[in-house]
Amino acid sequence: MKRVCLLGASGSIGRQTLDIIDAFPDQLTLVGFSVGEKIHLIEGIITKHPGVKAIAIKEEAALKSVRNKFPTLIFFAGDEGILELINIVKCDLVVNALVGFVGLEPTLHALENGVDVALANKEALVVGGPLVKAAMKKGHSELFPIDSEHVALDKLIRHESRKDIDKIILTASGGALSHLERHELKHVTIEQALSHPTWSMGPKITIDSATMFNKGFEIIEASYLFNIPSERIEVWMHPTSKIHSMIQLVDGTLLADIGLNNMHIPISYALFGRHRVKLPFLKYEPNPETIGIMSLKHVSETRFPALKLARWALSKQGTLPAAMNGANEVAVAAFLKGELRFDMIEGIVEAAMEAHHYLKNPTLNQLKEADAAARLCALRLVQEWML
Amino acid sequence: MKRVCLLGASGSIGRQTLDIIDAFPDQLTLVGFSVGEKIHLIEGIITKHPGVKAIAIKEEAALKSVRNKFPTLIFFAGDEGILELINIVKCDLVVNALVGFVGLEPTLHALENGVDVALANKEALVVGGPLVKAAMKKGHSELFPIDSEHVALDKLIRHESRKDIDKIILTASGGALSHLERHELKHVTIEQALSHPTWSMGPKITIDSATMFNKGFEIIEASYLFNIPSERIEVWMHPTSKIHSMIQLVDGTLLADIGLNNMHIPISYALFGRHRVKLPFLKYEPNPETIGIMSLKHVSETRFPALKLARWALSKQGTLPAAMNGANEVAVAAFLKGELRFDMIEGIVEAAMEAHHYLKNPTLNQLKEADAAARLCALRLVQEWML
Repeated sequence: MKRVCLLGASGSIGRQTLDIIDAFPDQLTLVGFSVGEKIHLIEGIITKHPGVKAIAIKEEAALKSVRNKFPTLIFFAGDEGILELINIVKCDLVVNALVGFVGLEPTLHALENGVDVALANKEALVVGGPLVKAAMKKGHSELFPIDSEHVALDKLIRHESRKDIDKIILTASGGALSHLERHELKHVTIEQALSHPTWSMGPKITIDSATMFNKGFEIIEASYLFNIPSERIEVWMHPTSKIHSMIQLVDGTLLADIGLNNMHIPISYALFGRHRVKLPFLKYEPNPETIGIMSLKHVSETRFPALKLARWALSKQGTLPAAMNGANEVAVAAFLKGELRFDMIEGIVEAAMEAHHYLKNPTLNQLKEADAAARLCALRLVQEWML
Repeated sequence: MKRVCLLGASGSIGRQTLDIIDAFPDQLTLVGFSVGEKIHLIEGIITKHPGVKAIAIKEEAALKSVRNKFPTLIFFAGDEGILELINIVKCDLVVNALVGFVGLEPTLHALENGVDVALANKEALVVGGPLVKAAMKKGHSELFPIDSEHVALDKLIRHESRKDIDKIILTASGGALSHLERHELKHVTIEQALSHPTWSMGPKITIDSATMFNKGFEIIEASYLFNIPSERIEVWMHPTSKIHSMIQLVDGTLLADIGLNNMHIPISYALFGRHRVKLPFLKYEPNPETIGIMSLKHVSETRFPALKLARWALSKQGTLPAAMNGANEVAVAAFLKGELRFDMIEGIVEAAMEAHHYLKNPTLNQLKEADAAARLCALRLVQEWML
């Protein structure tokens, strides 16, 4: 029985993780979870999962009410509360489905303490790749990616001889706006940017798909996960997202992982520690009609400057990825509140990266400082640019 | 140093095998070969390959002249000569690039005598699958497929856990005539049927592609090579032949092998005993534009009755595949001589299969008899139907 602690239970990945735990009651059990502000969801989750011992919520202010309502459970609050949650529940796997930089510290904490992590939170690796690797080494723990692209790559790469692998090819749908030219992005609405053509995901990652910061982050993730340099990671446009990723081998062959655009599949691969499982609730038999026509195209890094910025962050490492990510979080939040034009997101990030004070081998605290500084800088830029 | 004996040196596969041997003089050496009627090619081959000790030719009548011309080499003639060639050259690998039923006996002979075989000759497995497996067991020898589809499958399957593999999906270009309806096949010319859209191959296999007997044979080959029943082998239409084949896994994922339509790649994989190699003469870097648009479609077994006939042969085994293959060889030869209408090929084969006297566990000689009887029957049918 694998005991699972789920961080971010109310989001898209969190809910799909619960579906899988529900489907395999003899193999998986939920022992703790965190939710953000949606504390009304707690009751439903604990009714289905009697193994839950402790819960972390976001707001300190709500602690009293939930403690009164569920007196047999242990509650924590805030970012620190997530670490306490991991400490108190004895679990074999932390599923990290948090969104943003906040996902880094719990990842390090779990890994350092010998707990494996299934990571849907890209930012942890993007910002803290070297720290994550050090934490795995210290705790003798494992990291399982949840991103569909990286799960596809993990499945493809682990069976091949490393010397046979020339390149990694990340496929990109291009997000909601890839049909528009750069100059047409000026008046994009929130609704337009959120209409992802192939995947149904949370708002932050959907905007990151439209700018391709998401794909830039995936380049960085792939580089850390598979020990492969930026110049051997390509991004190809593939509008229907049927090919989740590819590897290019020494004999010129491409191996492609093709499938449903359904996150249950990569999540299950991570939950079961790199084993493929048949999900009973997923009635699906691949056939030529559902896969249909698969097209591949080059991606322009001029149209999608986020890719260039991500490669720059990866090449410099240190605090630069934290600056990129912090500024992007602020810019995306501002766009989603109607306070920033869509086509200014990359500019804000680039300016914050240029303004940022670089450190080569940062500690976690220095990364937090770099993150905070970049956010402040980006906030200021948002105000200035929208005057 | 791997010592190679090449059967069928003058054909398309034979010549491409020589290209690879030429490119790796430190790892591969040619010690013997067979040619059919093109004995004028001998001089060029032995000049480039001084390791050749013996040669088999087709016609007994030509023996004297080649012995006079190349007095230091040993020559044999006829079908029996190929077996003597394998006996006399000490080789580690027989590359069998013969065309037709004639490829079965040398395959069995090499395998039984402990010599590995790289098999481009489909008919050996199609007609004699159980005998080939018994020969491998007897000789503790290995069989490496050369077909692009089966090499792709071999690469995909051998790394996955067998319990994770649900299905094999063979892709089919559809050959030269797939744009035509069944009733439009009546007046197809030889030239039309030979215009394969994606692969440049010999005439027999090109016609077999247009009828899809080739794909039917590949179903049978795949079933023997990978121990998988007919109902778990699907055929999907894929006009551009970029995807060489796929496997379907228990989690709903398809793994696809994508690449150039160039037989050097699968041949090299077989020559190097299931290792991927970078071919120095193949200047190729995969990119989205060369792969382009990949479409997949269902295949109609009414439009392509050869698939149904092949599945029938596979389900009955025994002498039925020999009858199918023998009749098909006669029908294709008749079509190529302008003596049979294209749309009659499958009908001739089906009639010969129905007329044939079935044996369940045939010996090689009984297979030869079944082959001969089916040929005779098919010849008679060709004459009758074209009256």
